[in-house]
Formats: sequence, C-alpha cells, structure tokens
Amino acid sequence: MIITENLITFFSETREHTEALCKPLEIEDYVVQPIVDVSPPKWHLGHTTWFFEEFILKHHKPNYQLFNEDFAFVFNSYYESIGKRVVRNDRGNLSRPGVAKVYDYRHYVTNELKELLSSNVSKEVEMLLLMGIHHEKQHQELLMTDIKYILGNNPLLPRYNDTFEEDYTQSFPSKWITMNEGIYEIGHDNPSSFCYDNELGRHKVFIHEYNISNKLVTNKEYLEFINSGGYEDFNLWHAEGWDWLKQTKISQPMYWHNIDGDWHHYTLKGLQKLNLDAPVMHISYFEAFAYAQWKGCRLPTEFEWEAAQKLFEWGSRWEWTESAYLPYPGYKKAPGAIGEYNGKFMVNQKVLRGSSVVSPNHHIRPTYRNFFQTNLRWQFTGIRLAK
Amino acid sequence: MIITENLITFFSETREHTEALCKPLEIEDYVVQPIVDVSPPKWHLGHTTWFFEEFILKHHKPNYQLFNEDFAFVFNSYYESIGKRVVRNDRGNLSRPGVAKVYDYRHYVTNELKELLSSNVSKEVEMLLLMGIHHEKQHQELLMTDIKYILGNNPLLPRYNDTFEEDYTQSFPSKWITMNEGIYEIGHDNPSSFCYDNELGRHKVFIHEYNISNKLVTNKEYLEFINSGGYEDFNLWHAEGWDWLKQTKISQPMYWHNIDGDWHHYTLKGLQKLNLDAPVMHISYFEAFAYAQWKGCRLPTEFEWEAAQKLFEWGSRWEWTESAYLPYPGYKKAPGAIGEYNGKFMVNQKVLRGSSVVSPNHHIRPTYRNFFQTNLRWQFTGIRLAK
Amino acid sequence: MIITENLITFFSETREHTEALCKPLEIEDYVVQPIVDVSPPKWHLGHTTWFFEEFILKHHKPNYQLFNEDFAFVFNSYYESIGKRVVRNDRGNLSRPGVAKVYDYRHYVTNELKELLSSNVSKEVEMLLLMGIHHEKQHQELLMTDIKYILGNNPLLPRYNDTFEEDYTQSFPSKWITMNEGIYEIGHDNPSSFCYDNELGRHKVFIHEYNISNKLVTNKEYLEFINSGGYEDFNLWHAEGWDWLKQTKISQPMYWHNIDGDWHHYTLKGLQKLNLDAPVMHISYFEAFAYAQWKGCRLPTEFEWEAAQKLFEWGSRWEWTESAYLPYPGYKKAPGAIGEYNGKFMVNQKVLRGSSVVSPNHHIRPTYRNFFQTNLRWQFTGIRLAK
Amino acid sequence: MIITENLITFFSETREHTEALCKPLEIEDYVVQPIVDVSPPKWHLGHTTWFFEEFILKHHKPNYQLFNEDFAFVFNSYYESIGKRVVRNDRGNLSRPGVAKVYDYRHYVTNELKELLSSNVSKEVEMLLLMGIHHEKQHQELLMTDIKYILGNNPLLPRYNDTFEEDYTQSFPSKWITMNEGIYEIGHDNPSSFCYDNELGRHKVFIHEYNISNKLVTNKEYLEFINSGGYEDFNLWHAEGWDWLKQTKISQPMYWHNIDGDWHHYTLKGLQKLNLDAPVMHISYFEAFAYAQWKGCRLPTEFEWEAAQKLFEWGSRWEWTESAYLPYPGYKKAPGAIGEYNGKFMVNQKVLRGSSVVSPNHHIRPTYRNFFQTNLRWQFTGIRLAK
Repeated sequence: MIITENLITFFSETREHTEALCKPLEIEDYVVQPIVDVSPPKWHLGHTTWFFEEFILKHHKPNYQLFNEDFAFVFNSYYESIGKRVVRNDRGNLSRPGVAKVYDYRHYVTNELKELLSSNVSKEVEMLLLMGIHHEKQHQELLMTDIKYILGNNPLLPRYNDTFEEDYTQSFPSKWITMNEGIYEIGHDNPSSFCYDNELGRHKVFIHEYNISNKLVTNKEYLEFINSGGYEDFNLWHAEGWDWLKQTKISQPMYWHNIDGDWHHYTLKGLQKLNLDAPVMHISYFEAFAYAQWKGCRLPTEFEWEAAQKLFEWGSRWEWTESAYLPYPGYKKAPGAIGEYNGKFMVNQKVLRGSSVVSPNHHIRPTYRNFFQTNLRWQFTGIRLAK
Repeated sequence: MIITENLITFFSETREHTEALCKPLEIEDYVVQPIVDVSPPKWHLGHTTWFFEEFILKHHKPNYQLFNEDFAFVFNSYYESIGKRVVRNDRGNLSRPGVAKVYDYRHYVTNELKELLSSNVSKEVEMLLLMGIHHEKQHQELLMTDIKYILGNNPLLPRYNDTFEEDYTQSFPSKWITMNEGIYEIGHDNPSSFCYDNELGRHKVFIHEYNISNKLVTNKEYLEFINSGGYEDFNLWHAEGWDWLKQTKISQPMYWHNIDGDWHHYTLKGLQKLNLDAPVMHISYFEAFAYAQWKGCRLPTEFEWEAAQKLFEWGSRWEWTESAYLPYPGYKKAPGAIGEYNGKFMVNQKVLRGSSVVSPNHHIRPTYRNFFQTNLRWQFTGIRLAK
Repeated sequence: MIITENLITFFSETREHTEALCKPLEIEDYVVQPIVDVSPPKWHLGHTTWFFEEFILKHHKPNYQLFNEDFAFVFNSYYESIGKRVVRNDRGNLSRPGVAKVYDYRHYVTNELKELLSSNVSKEVEMLLLMGIHHEKQHQELLMTDIKYILGNNPLLPRYNDTFEEDYTQSFPSKWITMNEGIYEIGHDNPSSFCYDNELGRHKVFIHEYNISNKLVTNKEYLEFINSGGYEDFNLWHAEGWDWLKQTKISQPMYWHNIDGDWHHYTLKGLQKLNLDAPVMHISYFEAFAYAQWKGCRLPTEFEWEAAQKLFEWGSRWEWTESAYLPYPGYKKAPGAIGEYNGKFMVNQKVLRGSSVVSPNHHIRPTYRNFFQTNLRWQFTGIRLAK
Repeated sequence: MIITENLITFFSETREHTEALCKPLEIEDYVVQPIVDVSPPKWHLGHTTWFFEEFILKHHKPNYQLFNEDFAFVFNSYYESIGKRVVRNDRGNLSRPGVAKVYDYRHYVTNELKELLSSNVSKEVEMLLLMGIHHEKQHQELLMTDIKYILGNNPLLPRYNDTFEEDYTQSFPSKWITMNEGIYEIGHDNPSSFCYDNELGRHKVFIHEYNISNKLVTNKEYLEFINSGGYEDFNLWHAEGWDWLKQTKISQPMYWHNIDGDWHHYTLKGLQKLNLDAPVMHISYFEAFAYAQWKGCRLPTEFEWEAAQKLFEWGSRWEWTESAYLPYPGYKKAPGAIGEYNGKFMVNQKVLRGSSVVSPNHHIRPTYRNFFQTNLRWQFTGIRLAK
C-alpha cells in the first residue's frame, strides 16, 4: 500500500517536535537521571528512534544497515523479548553515545524511514508506523516531565524557557454535575483513529448515580488541606500511603518551596509565586485520595470520568481516578514485543484520565488510559472530586 | 438489651476454639516471627483479647480494671488511633509477656466480658461483640497459616498434628460454566447476618458473557506449567511479577520440596508426597495470573465469581481474582478505630473469594472479600480459571 | 594420655555454669533474636555443645552416635568448613528444637564426653577440650550480653534477677600514669596456661612516652559530654561515625532512658537510676573516640594498655582501644575449622582490652584480645583515656 | 612575604595540568557518576577551584567577589564545617552548572589568585596555597581513576586516548629482600618539603626481621590464583571479604573481560589483551590479602614498606598494606575545616603505599599514606608480598 502524504507529514512533524522540545537544553541536561523514574533526555531521543529501527527498518527495509549494533542494547527500555538492555537505573551513568551521536542516529533513522515510506509497503508497516509515532508522542510528554524534574531538582533551579505556561486557571464557578444511574459504553470505538490496545474492547458498565465536579481542585483549596493538618491525620490516608508519608517526610506537593512564609513553586519558567487559583499539581494518588477523604468526597472511577467527560473542561492535568489499572473485558495482548507495551503493567497501578499541559497534540482523547504507581508525583497530576 | 444465650455461646466457643487450635504447639512455637507477614501465635492470642478489652470492656464495663497497662502497646496491631504500637516486624522479638501470662490475660478478659454480657447492655455493645467474635475468627484463620509457616520453614519440618487434612480432591470432571451477559447484584444483603463493611452497599454490576471453571486448578495441571517452563517465560508475567521472580528466585509453590526427583510438600501433617489430584495451593497472585496466561485463560473478577458461585463447589482454597481491592459504591468507613478495619487497605491489593481449609465455621459466605498483596503465598490460595 | 581430674572438673563446672546463667529465664526468653548480633540463648546452649560434638566426639570417640543429624546444621555458627549452616539472622526464627530438647542434647554430649575423658586420649583431644571449654566461656559472656539485650529491649523491661551488680564504682582519685618510652614485650608467654592463637607470637613493640588514666570514664563525665553537645559536634567524630549518628539518631549510651528529666538505665536488676560515679558502659567505639576528642585526649593503643595494665585497676568494662584488630608478627592460623576462630575477623574491627562484669572466671588475662565492629554497643564496653 | 616565582609557576602548571587531563573528554563525560565513589570530572574541576576560593580568596583577598554564591554548596565535598553540601551520591544528578561555566569559574579563580600572589601575603596564605596545590594534585589522580571508571563501565568501552600506558613491566628476576630486626624511623622529616598532616610525627617503630619482595605480583601470577580456585576457597578470605564476594559475585580484577576464552582488560587506551608480565591492578584489599594467603605469604605493614622502600622499585601501583589507617603518635588534627582533611577517615580503612601510573609529579614520596576501604578496586592498586 501507499502511505498517505498526511501520515508522512505526521511522522516528520513528530520527529521534529521531539527535537524542538530539547532546544532549550544544554548538552549536560541530556545526560543525567536523578531518580529511576526519570530518563535522561538523550535516552528518550535514542529510544524513540530505536523503536522505528527495531520494529520497522530492521525487518521491513531491504538491506537496511543498523546505525550501530550496540544501540539496541543501550536504547531498549523494558522489552525483554529483544534481548539484553541497560538496566533502567543505569541510564544516567552512560556518557556515551554523546548527544551529537544520538542526533546523528535520529536523522539517519528518520531519513531511512522516509525512504522506506516513499515505496510500496505492507499494511503492517503502516500499523507499526502509527504505533511508533504515538510511542514517540508519549515520550514527548515524559520528556517534558523528566526535563522539569532534572532542572527543578537542581539547587540552581535553572529555567527551561521564559514562556512555558503550566497554570490554566479555571475561572468559572464550581458546581456538581449529576449523572444518572444506568449502563454506559466505555472504551474506544472509532476504528479509523488510533488508540492503544488497553482502550479497546468497548464494553458496557453499570454506573450508579453520582456527582462529579466541573472543576479541578485548586492550589488554594489544597493549601487549606495542608493548613488544617491533612498531612498529619492518618485517618485520611491509606495504610500504605501513611507509611510512605512517614518514610519520605513529604508534607506538600512536589516543587513547592516555602520561602520566608510565602509559597512558591518551580515551573518550567523558573521559580514562581504560587498561583492560588490554578489547579494543584504534582501530587501522588495517596495525596489525591487523602484530600478527597478530607473533603468528605472521593475520586471518580475511570468509568465515571469517561461517562461524564463531555460535560466538563479537562486537559491541563492528568486526573487520578479510583480505578486500578486492569484489562477491559476481552483484552488480549498483542503477540511479541509490541504486546509488552501495556498489558504487563496491569497490576498495582492507578488509572489517570485526561491529559496535561505537556501532552502533545493528537495524543489526547477521552478514552486514553494513563497509569502510574500510587506514590509517583513527577507527572502533571491533578484532582477532580466525585461523590 | 439482653444478649441472647446463643450469642454468648458463640462468644465462648470462639474463645475456646482459638485456644484449641494452639494445643499442639510447644511454648517456643508461640514466640517466633520468621517473616513480617507472620505473627507469633501468642500475639494472635493477645491481640484478639485486646480487641475485646479496648473496644468493649474499657468503655462499657463500669470500674473495669485493665489487666496490664502495657498490653495495649504490645497487642495493638495497626490501629493508629489507639496510640503507640510495637512495630509489626518487631513482634517476634518480644519474649515477654510469656505464654502463660497471655493465657491469664485471655481468661481474665473472657470472664470479665461474660460478666458484662450477663447484664443489660447497649445495642452498641452487641454490635462490638459480634465484631470482636468475627475479628477473632479471622485471626483463627491467620493463626493456622502462621503456624504452618513457622513449622514449615523450620529445617526440622515438625508436624502440627497427625490428622489435619489440607487436600480436598475434586473428583468430578472439569467443565466450563457459561454465564449470561447482564446486570447482577453484588454485595451483602441479609441485614440479620453479620458481614464486614467492605461487603456492604449491595449494588448492580453489568457483566459480559463469560465462562468460569467448575474446578480448581490441580497440582498436576500446575506441574505441567512448571515443566513447560512457565517460570522462565517473561511473556506470561506482569513486569512487577517478573522482577519479583528474579529477585526471589522462586520456581515453585511455597512448601514444595523436590527430593531426589519426587515432589513433596509440607503440610500440617508433616512432609507428604504431592497429591497430584488435589488443588494447587500457596501460590501468589503473580503465579495465578501467569498460569492463567499460559492456559490462554484469565482469572475471574470478584463480580464474576460472586455471580456464579452457586454453580460450583468452593471452600478449600482462597481463590485469587483479577479484581483490585476497592470500595463498593457508597462505601463509608466507620468513624474511629473500628473504621481502620478495612478501608485503609483498599489500594494495591487483590481480592480473593471463597474460603479455605483453615477458615473457621460461621466465617464463610459468598460475599466475603479477602485481600492480599500480589506477592504473598503463605495463605491457602488457589486458582480458578475464567475466559 | 590421661586427662587430669582438675581439667575434668573445669569442664563440668563450665558446662554447669552455662546452665546456671540461664536459670532466671522463661522458656520464651531462650528463643528470640531481636538484632542480628544477638543470638537466642538456646542457640548458645546448642552451639557450645555442638562444638564438643563436632570437633571431639565425632572424630575421637569410637562408635559415637550423633544426637541428631540436623543439629550440625542448626547450631553451626560461622564455620564454613563444616558445611551448611542456618544464616545468622535466622536463628530467632527457629522455634524447634525446643528448649527441653536442647538441654537433652547438652546432657547427652556432656556425658558422652565425660565417658571419653575417663579413658586414655590423645594430646589433640586435650587441646580440643581446652579449646571447647574456653569457647564455652566466651559464649557465657555473650549469653549475658544477649540476655541483657533481649530483656532490656522489651517494652516491659523485665529484670534478669535482683542481685546482679553491673556498677563497679572506682572511688579512688583519678590520676595520669606516665609510661616511659622504650621497647615492650607484647603477647602471651606462658606456655602452661591457655590462650587463643591471636595472643601468641610474643613480640617487641617500641612505644613512645605516654600517659594513661588510672580510672575509667564515669557516667557523670560522660553526661557532661552529652550536655555540652558532644553528639551534635561533627568535629569530634570520624566521618563514618558521624554518618552512623545521623542514620541511627543515637544521642546517648544504649539502655539509657530519660524519664521526666532524670536519667535511668536498664540493668540486669531492672530499671535503675543512673549511678553517676559508676563507669559509663554500652558505648560504641565511635562514641568512645568522640568522648576522647572532646576531652583533648585519645584512646590508648592495645600495646599501651598491655604495657601499663599492672598499674591500674581493670575488669568491669571492656575497654575500647585505638588499635585495629590485626595479626601479631608471625601469626599463622591453625589449619581447618579451628583456624576459622580468630584470623578471619582481622579486618575492620577494633581491639578491646580487659574484661567485664559478665566475663567468666578463668577467662580473664592481660593479653586477651577482644574485638568488635566500631558501631556495636551491646557489650559492657567502657572508656579509658590516654594522651 | 613574597611568594617565589617557582611557587607561582608550580601553581599555574598544576591548574593547567588538570585541564589538560580533561582534554580528551566529551562534554557528556564530565557529568556522570556511575558509582558513589566516582565523582563527575566537572565536579573535580569545580571542587579544586572552590578550595582556593573558600580557604584563600574569601578570607585573604580584599574585596574579593565570589564567582557564584551557590557554588560553595555545589562543590563542597565533605567539609561539614563549611555548611550545606550536595550529598556525595547526588553529584551525578546535577547538569548545571554546565562544563563551560565550570571552566569560567576555574579561570576566574586562577586569575584572582595570581593577582593576590603578586602582592605581599602572609605566611598562612603560602601554606594554604601549597595545601591547595597538593589538594589539586590529589584530585588529578582521582580524576584519572574516575575517568577510567566512567569510560570503562560504558558498554561501548570508549578509549581515553591512544597513548596512555598503564603496564609497567618489571623485567628483572624476582627475589626476597631480607630486612633486619630493629628500630626504624617512620614518617616525614624534611621540613622544607610538603607533606600531609598524617605523615608527620616521625617516630620509632620496632620491626622484627622480615622479607619483602622486590617485584609486584604479575597478571600471570594472579591468573594462577584464579585458575586454582582462589575465588572459591573461603579459607583464603576474611569473613567480611567472603561475604563481599558472595554478594558481588566478583571473580576477577575490575576491568577484566574474558572474550572467547582470552583475557582482556580495559585500559585508558581501550580494550587490550592482558599483558601477563605486567603487575596486576584494580584489586581490592580483600583480594590482595587472599592472594597472599594462597601464596603462603602476607602483605607488608606500612612500616615494613617504608623501611625497605629504597631497596625496590615502586611507583606504578598503589600497594595495599596490612596496616589499618591510624594516626601516628602525637597526631593532632589542624583546627577548622583544614583539619577535616585526613583525621576523620582514620577508621576502617587500609593504608596503601607507593604511587601509581596516574599519580602526578611532585606528589610522590616514600612517606605518602594513601587509604581506602577494603572493598574498593577502581584505583590502580597492586600487590607486593612479604613474609
């Protein structure tokens, strides 16, 4: 089949956009890995490239020459099927390949793929191409959260740039949206648009009557929770959350700094006074849950969220839900390495719905299921209440 | 109100039964705690007693004298509301109070409570009494699993007694039970019988058509999984399960011993040749999941289990489900320390349904929701497949 | 050769004395192991017995029947040569063999050995017998320190008995003893009396002029160090000691309790008001060093201690020295398992000289070299200054 | 006083030499910290500069402007006296300040110091200048060992350059040098030449007759130890060394690679076939000790080494001694931060004597006392036997 011009443009733009996101970085910023959850930017650049090379070029481009044999080893992430990989917490220990070499690798693979796409290819290649583009978009989001972590945990607090806006104030009044009891259809249903396997299997869910807020919880509201002793009252927390609090000594969202009694937070524009009207962010599921308990409310399930999402504004914060990350009825993971993408994480994680200020275009949809462990905070996470 | 004779008998029998379970023990067996999940038997004896003292006698019996002030500290478990407690992994370091003293404590509290129950008491006392009895029954089950762990991990492999039967062979042919798509009612609905708060909130769930096995997976079937390399194929495992395997080097159910090529397992009757027709037990959720993957099936959800449970035999193994342990719609935890019972564990655990060979009488019902972390194996857990 | 009556009596008394030390214990006290450095009393009873069985009876008594094959596995300590052993931090997880069985084992071995000793035996057996007796005496000392730890870290603070005196007040005035520069002879030199291999190789050491205190540091003096901020001034500590302080949050000797502003300490007689005139005890090398720094002094080397020891009173506290535990010139470890006794610990430990209130008779001599890691405090350790 | 032209040249050359050592690096190589013992090269560049700024310019140059206030925080190492510091294992997480900025910092401080030195300064400034130069020389050595670690643990095994020679073959025959029993003078005694405080306090030591080898142990000899099972025989190892072996699974020197049966090792020139005649390197004290045990010999003490050093060739490997790192008689640490230099490490480390292929000029003398923990291997360490 012939790949459409549109899709080729989509591919090119995605590849360029990743590089544009890295423009403000110094070379040193590409290298470090301050915690295991954060990957060095150059690793993101290499890994998204390796995906195209490993799954498309290597198998589908005749006489394709690997850019460098060792890169499969360096840039593989968690794909056990593909052989050895650098353990995840070792990524920040690798000074080589250097940044320039990684860009060479990117451009080589981009060009080789464009050449392949200009010829007649199989349906499978088109599917893998789409997969690779969306995989890269997912990493664009992680890239931004990781960059924020790398800069925001440096004692010099360097800014990323002067313009990136993280605070999306919702200036309308807050109210409860009431949803009727009944059967709702959940999951992706548009065969012509891309989605991940974990969104498939559109199915019926019975939901009891509930209320869901039209607004995200703000910094001001969250401050009230802090000031009223929310972090000291074990009644509000899961047992595991309470242990986590005592171990980490956490008492505020990530990136918050109290400077001479005034709350500030680090943003990609640098250290800023806390905007009280903006939605709170960088809180763990444990904190989101405790906040909801304190308010006498709860978090919505992912089904409640999806059923109601047309009725409220979303998109600036990933929103924690009460739902554990589980397969939809009839879920089957794809065979081989592609199948490692989602299914094997379906245990001990919570679903987040929506998207965030660093989510790339064309990567946002109501059925998207993001998921993280309950203690993680470096994402642009937020809270929406239900009851 | 007047407590019925039946309920007083229920109380007395429960107290006596706990002590009867400990009869075969030597004093030394009461003391040790080989892993953090296991509690020393004397701690179970004291803790179930402390529950009655703390929640009933202390507040409802006029002029009640505490048996010993320090025991609240020693025998509190996870109740943060009640002040300091011995950290959970320190229980096995306490030689005092000695076993005889703990029995004195039991008898003192049993008698004081009987005295209280012979008078006119409030409805609340009756509720707390029921709660305390069921709490103790729950600990009877844990007591047996903990005793098995303590003896079964001793290099001398001492037996508990000569008669306790763990293998309940299901000798009927295996078949799939088909359940229709539709709305099912889930949760406890008999106001006259006891249940925990996590079973309440009977509610509707839409379930798609599914099949569920009428039999538990047997040792023979599980051996085929082992022999076909199930423990070496990462494709069958969750990422977290695979990490767990590599870290623990586990390659068979707990208590299995391969002696000169023959499979044995430790049971409460001592070391036995493995009965191939008995249901497999002592496997983690990770292993149950991997086995189901290998069979091309899956585990049932707790809703599927409850909807179908009248159609199959259950009761010898706690059965892992695919469901995360979450609150039912409308769940509200009770205020105060009693409310710490269930709600605060509703994260990162899986639901088990059914009951096991060590479940006490009157503690078995179709709506009962047991829950454990995904790596735990010391319970009498088993596998039922769905698809 | 014929074993002398005296030596047989020495053997019998040693065996009986160990059991006498355990008299005040409840059965439960024999079982627990609150920290890895502490062994359960029943393990000491079994291990000292196993030593006689393994090294003497098994090889030297014709037709000797092992009491129980598995005990070699359970009661071996660190002897790699003798095959598998229960890992050291697992000793407290073993409820079996029970205490009564361990006493049976003791009596069986004691009797078998007496029978052997009544016959003609080789010189090697006599040497091993002496070794075994002194080995058991060493464990008598550890037994008492371990018992103190087991009882003293129980929240109920049970006493061992009512009479054991730990405080040996030195009521004479403190003064500095001046020792001349010169060559001193160090090490054991009496071939007719027992010593360990690490004391042998009497050799010359050149010592520069020094002063050594005639008294141990008292609780009163140590309190001044605490009150003047000694635990908060990093200048006084080794880097490794400072890290240890920050990690453990230690700010006083082990067993000290500040109750409503008054200092108490747990002793084998139970909780007591701190005797200000008694020598401080239960401090680590790090603390002893920091105290000496604070005083503008230093700890003596083991050579300085041995050269001067006739001139001062010692015997109630093991005294930390500045000397690392190293082999004397010409040190050769014995071949086989007996050689594992001392040599393999000669790295990263400090020498202690003297003896303590729990050191058994016939186990005290000026050349004795005790040794521990620099962070350990459960021994009856003390401080003598030099400059 | 007026600083001599020679000393100013010494300063300039030292500053330039550090930068010359970094010439072959890519920017990314300056940033990473693969293990806690290794520091990122840019940290060495900054830290040696900070030393001059903190101890000289800040206090002795009128109106000195700090280059950047935050750098004190970033480039302080272990000096607790100087306030907060980035924890040691966090150095590799800092992408900023970038490499260019660190070089700016260096040049600024170098020039400011030159300006200061052209004026009349106090004797103290001269002393601190000398201290700072030698401090930087010490870091030049660490810089090279750290660079080797960073490149040699990268899966791509990049080379540092094409010329750096690590193998200094000793082609003369091996023999034992016999040293007479007697009193030897140990320690630095030339007041006109620089040394560290830990070398001072020249003092007398009585040494018994001994033999010391005129040659270092070669790769060939060490291979015999490996091939004869040296890493599997616990009798040769300290208990702590044996635990370390079992935990790390180490079975050969660091940087050795067995490729299809042939031994190679990574060097600064890249991967090379192992030169059997060159002295073995990159072994821990534990390994050096075990090798000596296997040979029926021992390691020399630092006193034996110093007493004999004129009679053998040394200088290509730091040589492990049997001596623990302890203060010489009369050792007093300097007051304030300078005093933190050596004294606080005098526990649980072993002394190394000599110097290595990466030791800078003017930093090599017979009384120099290097010291490391017993498990470290990334230094160019070697073995000389004694008996």
